[in-house]
Amino acid sequence: MAPTGLVMVVDQSGTERSVPAAVEHPLTIRVDGDELVTLMTIGAQPEELVLGYLRNQGLIRDLALIESVTVDWERELADVVTRSGLGVGPPFDIRSPAPIPSPPPLPRSTIHRVVAIVPQHNAVYRSAGSVHGCGLATAADMLRFVEDVGRHNATDAISGWMWLHDACGTDKVLYSTGRLTTEIVSKAALMGIPVVISRNGVTRSAIELAETTGVMLVARARGHGFQVFSCHDRLVLD
Amino acid sequence: MAPTGLVMVVDQSGTERSVPAAVEHPLTIRVDGDELVTLMTIGAQPEELVLGYLRNQGLIRDLALIESVTVDWERELADVVTRSGLGVGPPFDIRSPAPIPSPPPLPRSTIHRVVAIVPQHNAVYRSAGSVHGCGLATAADMLRFVEDVGRHNATDAISGWMWLHDACGTDKVLYSTGRLTTEIVSKAALMGIPVVISRNGVTRSAIELAETTGVMLVARARGHGFQVFSCHDRLVLD
Repeated sequence: MAPTGLVMVVDQSGTERSVPAAVEHPLTIRVDGDELVTLMTIGAQPEELVLGYLRNQGLIRDLALIESVTVDWERELADVVTRSGLGVGPPFDIRSPAPIPSPPPLPRSTIHRVVAIVPQHNAVYRSAGSVHGCGLATAADMLRFVEDVGRHNATDAISGWMWLHDACGTDKVLYSTGRLTTEIVSKAALMGIPVVISRNGVTRSAIELAETTGVMLVARARGHGFQVFSCHDRLVLD
Repeated sequence: MAPTGLVMVVDQSGTERSVPAAVEHPLTIRVDGDELVTLMTIGAQPEELVLGYLRNQGLIRDLALIESVTVDWERELADVVTRSGLGVGPPFDIRSPAPIPSPPPLPRSTIHRVVAIVPQHNAVYRSAGSVHGCGLATAADMLRFVEDVGRHNATDAISGWMWLHDACGTDKVLYSTGRLTTEIVSKAALMGIPVVISRNGVTRSAIELAETTGVMLVARARGHGFQVFSCHDRLVLD
C-alpha cells in the first residue's frame, strides 16, 4: 500500500502540475463476522491499527482473547476472530480512564531528543502533508512512528504495536503531531504512558483530564521551546 | 461562554507563566428525551451546532420538523423537541452524497478575497491555537465564521446557520482551516456548497468524492498561492 500518490492540480497561475497526496482507504473491521466500524486509513500498519482500535475502545481487553486478524485490501476488510467466538464486549467510558501508577520524572533532555528525531520519521507528512503522526519513544530512541489521515488511527496503531510487543508504557513518551485533546490524554492513560509531547497546543479539558490521570502534557514543543501544561513538578531541568 | 481561559504553564527554562487555552465543554444532544450523542464544543453557537449536527448526519431532514432547541450549560444538555415527538430518522450514508446541480464557475479573485479576510475572523485560533475554523463566504463577504475544537463541529454549526437562515449553498464558498477529507467534501455536498477552500492539504479519497459530487477543492491556499484539486475547469483566471 503506497501511502501517497501523484494527483494533478491547477495552481493560481493556471499551470497544471503533479503533486503528492495522501492515499487513504476504507477498512471495515469485522469481529467474529459482525461489522464493527469502517476506518479511513493510509494502511501502513493495518493489523496494529485494528488491534489498537479494539484495545483503545476497550472492546477487547486482552490480546490473548484474539485468535487472528486477517486484512484483505481487495475487499477492504479486516477480519478479527476471537477465541471465544463471542465478539466484542462493551466499550470503556473514555472520559474516565484509570490514573497511571507512579509516573516517573521527565528530564528536559528527553523532550529535546524526541522533538529532534521526529523529522527522521514523518516521511508522508513531509511529502504530502494531510496526515498526523504518532510516535512511541524512550529517552534514547523512537521505537515506532505511525502516520495516518486521522490522529486517532495513528495513536491506535501505536497501541496495537505495544500490545503485540507486550510493551509497558511507564518508561515511554507518546509524541503526537496533533493537538492535545481529551481523546489523546485518555488513550495515553489507557496505554499507561505518562507523558505526551506535541508540537501543537492543548484544550482545557485535556489539561483537567491529564491532571486527574497523571499524564504530563508537553505542548508547543518545537526546536528547544516547549510548555508543560500538567504535572509540572515532574519536569527535571537536567 | 468564554472560548478561552488562562492556564499556567512551565516552559523549557522552568519559568511559570499564564497562556490562553481553548475551553471546551461536553454538550449532550437529546432528541425528544433520548440521548443521541455528546459533542465537545467551545460552545459559541450551540443551537446552530445542534441543528447542523442533526442536518449533516441526515437524522432530521427538514427544519420544519423541529419544534425547539434548548441549551442548558449547567446540565450540559441540548434538548431538541420535534413536532412529531418521534425522535430522529436513520442517518445518511455519508460516503455517497448527491451531486451538486449546476455548480457555477469560480473566479480566482474570490479565492484571494476569502483567504484575505479569514484573519479578521479566527480570533480564538490566534489567541489560543488548538481550534479549527470554518467560514461561509460569498464573493463579497464572510457571512459566518465558527471556531471549535473539532472541524466537524465548526462545519456543522455553519450548516445549522444556513438552515436557520434558509441560505442556499450554490453561490457560496466554504472555507476550512482543516485538511480536505472525505467528511468535509460530503458535508459540503450535503449543504449544496460547490467550493471548499483550505489553507491545508487534501487526501486522495477526498479528491475522488469531490469529482463525483461536483465539489471544487482549493487547497494549500495561503497568500496568493493555491492549488485546485478537483473540478479544475471551473476556475476562471479573472
